[in-house]
Amino acid sequence: MKMAWNAYGKERVKLVRVERRGETHEITDLSVCIQLEGDFTAAHAAGDNTNITATDTMKNTVYALAGAGTGEIEEFAARLVSHFLRINPAVTKATVDIWESPWTRISVGGKPHGSAFVRAGSDKRTTEVTGTREATIVRAGIDDLVVLKSSHSGFEGFRNDIFTTLEETSDRIFATAIQANWLYARAGVAYGALWQGVRRTILETFAEHDSRSVQHTMYAMGDAVLASFDDVSEIHFSLPNKHHIPVDLGPFGLRNNNEIFLPTVEPYGLIEATFRR
Amino acid sequence: MKMAWNAYGKERVKLVRVERRGETHEITDLSVCIQLEGDFTAAHAAGDNTNITATDTMKNTVYALAGAGTGEIEEFAARLVSHFLRINPAVTKATVDIWESPWTRISVGGKPHGSAFVRAGSDKRTTEVTGTREATIVRAGIDDLVVLKSSHSGFEGFRNDIFTTLEETSDRIFATAIQANWLYARAGVAYGALWQGVRRTILETFAEHDSRSVQHTMYAMGDAVLASFDDVSEIHFSLPNKHHIPVDLGPFGLRNNNEIFLPTVEPYGLIEATFRR
Amino acid sequence: MKMAWNAYGKERVKLVRVERRGETHEITDLSVCIQLEGDFTAAHAAGDNTNITATDTMKNTVYALAGAGTGEIEEFAARLVSHFLRINPAVTKATVDIWESPWTRISVGGKPHGSAFVRAGSDKRTTEVTGTREATIVRAGIDDLVVLKSSHSGFEGFRNDIFTTLEETSDRIFATAIQANWLYARAGVAYGALWQGVRRTILETFAEHDSRSVQHTMYAMGDAVLASFDDVSEIHFSLPNKHHIPVDLGPFGLRNNNEIFLPTVEPYGLIEATFRR
Amino acid sequence: MKMAWNAYGKERVKLVRVERRGETHEITDLSVCIQLEGDFTAAHAAGDNTNITATDTMKNTVYALAGAGTGEIEEFAARLVSHFLRINPAVTKATVDIWESPWTRISVGGKPHGSAFVRAGSDKRTTEVTGTREATIVRAGIDDLVVLKSSHSGFEGFRNDIFTTLEETSDRIFATAIQANWLYARAGVAYGALWQGVRRTILETFAEHDSRSVQHTMYAMGDAVLASFDDVSEIHFSLPNKHHIPVDLGPFGLRNNNEIFLPTVEPYGLIEATFRR
Repeated sequence: MKMAWNAYGKERVKLVRVERRGETHEITDLSVCIQLEGDFTAAHAAGDNTNITATDTMKNTVYALAGAGTGEIEEFAARLVSHFLRINPAVTKATVDIWESPWTRISVGGKPHGSAFVRAGSDKRTTEVTGTREATIVRAGIDDLVVLKSSHSGFEGFRNDIFTTLEETSDRIFATAIQANWLYARAGVAYGALWQGVRRTILETFAEHDSRSVQHTMYAMGDAVLASFDDVSEIHFSLPNKHHIPVDLGPFGLRNNNEIFLPTVEPYGLIEATFRR
Repeated sequence: MKMAWNAYGKERVKLVRVERRGETHEITDLSVCIQLEGDFTAAHAAGDNTNITATDTMKNTVYALAGAGTGEIEEFAARLVSHFLRINPAVTKATVDIWESPWTRISVGGKPHGSAFVRAGSDKRTTEVTGTREATIVRAGIDDLVVLKSSHSGFEGFRNDIFTTLEETSDRIFATAIQANWLYARAGVAYGALWQGVRRTILETFAEHDSRSVQHTMYAMGDAVLASFDDVSEIHFSLPNKHHIPVDLGPFGLRNNNEIFLPTVEPYGLIEATFRR
Repeated sequence: MKMAWNAYGKERVKLVRVERRGETHEITDLSVCIQLEGDFTAAHAAGDNTNITATDTMKNTVYALAGAGTGEIEEFAARLVSHFLRINPAVTKATVDIWESPWTRISVGGKPHGSAFVRAGSDKRTTEVTGTREATIVRAGIDDLVVLKSSHSGFEGFRNDIFTTLEETSDRIFATAIQANWLYARAGVAYGALWQGVRRTILETFAEHDSRSVQHTMYAMGDAVLASFDDVSEIHFSLPNKHHIPVDLGPFGLRNNNEIFLPTVEPYGLIEATFRR
Repeated sequence: MKMAWNAYGKERVKLVRVERRGETHEITDLSVCIQLEGDFTAAHAAGDNTNITATDTMKNTVYALAGAGTGEIEEFAARLVSHFLRINPAVTKATVDIWESPWTRISVGGKPHGSAFVRAGSDKRTTEVTGTREATIVRAGIDDLVVLKSSHSGFEGFRNDIFTTLEETSDRIFATAIQANWLYARAGVAYGALWQGVRRTILETFAEHDSRSVQHTMYAMGDAVLASFDDVSEIHFSLPNKHHIPVDLGPFGLRNNNEIFLPTVEPYGLIEATFRR
């Protein structure tokens, strides 16, 4: 038997950092995952842990490195990647994923409070940084951006086979929870501003697009992002189709003018693609 | 054997309603639960379903009554309660709970789009309307309003017993997911405006309070709501204490000036109270 | 403003206990919740924590008292209740809920292993013990006992109103996740044997009953338990109706002889009752 | 912009099938996911759905093909894969994943009932079949097999760096939820018997192994499976390390002889590898 591939690490290291500037605080709310690949054959085959950095040590490292501030999550992930490659010569590849949860200031008498926050929106900002001794790759992303459009969305002209019962429609609800991640052409770009820009471009394209399918709008969103941001060289989307089924009110003597929908949890469509410059 | 109590109904009837005024749509996103109490002994003891309104019929009723619009969720719940009391003489009490999920318009070029939406915030607007043939009670509420304050929060002077190890602190993170519901003194108040007002009062009090415990701030929030809104005669809070534990960076030669915290999922404190005028 | 009711405590204190008798180990896997009621007005109104046992201390107490063994969960809960009433004079009522997760021994070569275990079944054994300075009440229960019967289940003769579309059926799938809890007439009964007996009685009645509705079978299960166990004075059931909808294969030129079903997650029926001797 | 990769399909098509042989029924409880890859550029770029099989049709196909029985899940998945390749010439690759939930007969008076079932265990049987016009690959698997061993497990001799605080231990709890999937060397093997055999081998190896780390036991389980089953040519494991932390009872004047543990949810270790013949 040979080991074809192996990796190990720590998932969901939770960290909240408070930065205090007098009465004005900033909070950073992260969930960090670390995976290391390398020469760990002795640990597997012989129970020899000499090359193993304990996953508990990985957790400690997150807190220790956060002590000096995290910066943008892409930067913090890159620092962690570098650290693990440097601290353990057996490591050939390190991957760090970070999810950041958004908070906004509570408004008191119309003014944002300095140190009280409320969770904003459903979406998370994400990053995945992968490093070897030769190169580092930085991806950024967004997760669980829940959107719905109630016009300019149809699904027509699809294949008809013996098991097809779905009717064509030129007016359906299109609802999804956008998961996207994109590759930066180089490290050290303006991560924060770019993330805001890509998020806005995705949302605006979703809103404005005359959609003939999930694929059609996904492609348009990819096209818009790659056209607008030179620093993005590739973008991947994963879009669940959160079906909204018009309810038949006929049995009750009523008409449903595309107004009353049953949103369903399962089954759901799943549409994915990677677009590249 | 006697039946001391019984109830039955339908949980989680999901409904999305689109109201179309030309290019400007409004969406309403609800989850409805119905429970009926009454004289259903024959169904239990003898399998005689004569008095039983099928829960499938309850689901249909939600969609049928929504056809003419829902109005505020308190009003929609009250209509459902009245309907079930009227349609089935065996029913002595009907309870309808509704959760409403918030959506906000996607901004395109700085202007809100007419028919494209993004999920806003984590909290839900809720109501519970309970009706008998004599009276109807309307409660409104909020669920999963996730907040955090990083100053003006301590926990000191608590009891010390043989199993106490917690240290006193004058500066801790106070994070919770507010669940509150309140009783209206009468039906037909300005449900929408009141809900916004109570939510704002809760948030502002949470932000401004000099907190000596979860109880202390919960009481202050209840006091502020009852003082500000004559139409609210009672308010109940259920507040999980989402502990944020300062990480000891000493082993790494670093100091943690109350900056780096580990947020924990379990165990968690749970603090509850009902305040009445 | 007055405080009409208040309680606080610690939720989900997780505990795994290993009892070692040479090569044969026993494991106990518990989740413990504690809620205290009492005179905590000063804490709420004035931020005076003198009467407050910290929830962190409650957590410590669980581990400390478990050091000497837990015994049956009803006994462990009762010890915790007594402790909190004794240790804090402000406490007027203490409630302890425990969930126990079942494990079974891994079989190796047909023989049960002494110290290796696999999670058994979906259901949990539960208890709720409530104590005041006057009395203690012991309830035991079962949670998430997922069952399904594919024969001897129908639903006919229910009310027909303007919104009824459900068809009568003499042959439907009846699936549920049984949640039940029962009151013991006195403390100190044979908790372990009784729990096994009640569980078996519930399962056998569910299997054997000629069901005309969820209510009908729920009543039969309550009746069987009260008839079989003198120490049980009351039993409460909460039964979600996990609907299984026959799939219409007609459009594909096939007949569905009650063989192919779509199990749905929501909406679901919820049927509840309390039966008393 | 070019599309580097794309796929789409339907997730979580739920199906319960009842096979009736007089009073003895068999039930099959499946969740099916389908993903298709192929030439769908026109749909993406131009909104031309000519080549698109609707995901709703995929759902229908699952129910229609199940009408004649499913057989082993590997066989049912393979039939679905073949169908989609045949029915749509644009499809170049089809992947079908199936999860099967285990049920066991309720025992009545010591005898298994013919048509009443209770959910058995936490683990699911899984398969993934991938087909192109050239070849079909069959993988089988197991998911969420929750196990724990309380002896013969240690973790010592790992690397020590500046952030290491974990202490070595020769006696720790090893708990995990095994996720494994393996590649069959050819189609048409005895899927049911092999799955039972691999599951038993994994469990027995977990129980018997003298574990120096999760990696060490994972390797032993892989080795045992590949040594015992010629039809398995590769096996992949993904093992969360569900940490159980010994509770320090010292502050309460008690000793913890490795008896009282706090099981934690997050963070958790994650150990993965693929072993090949």
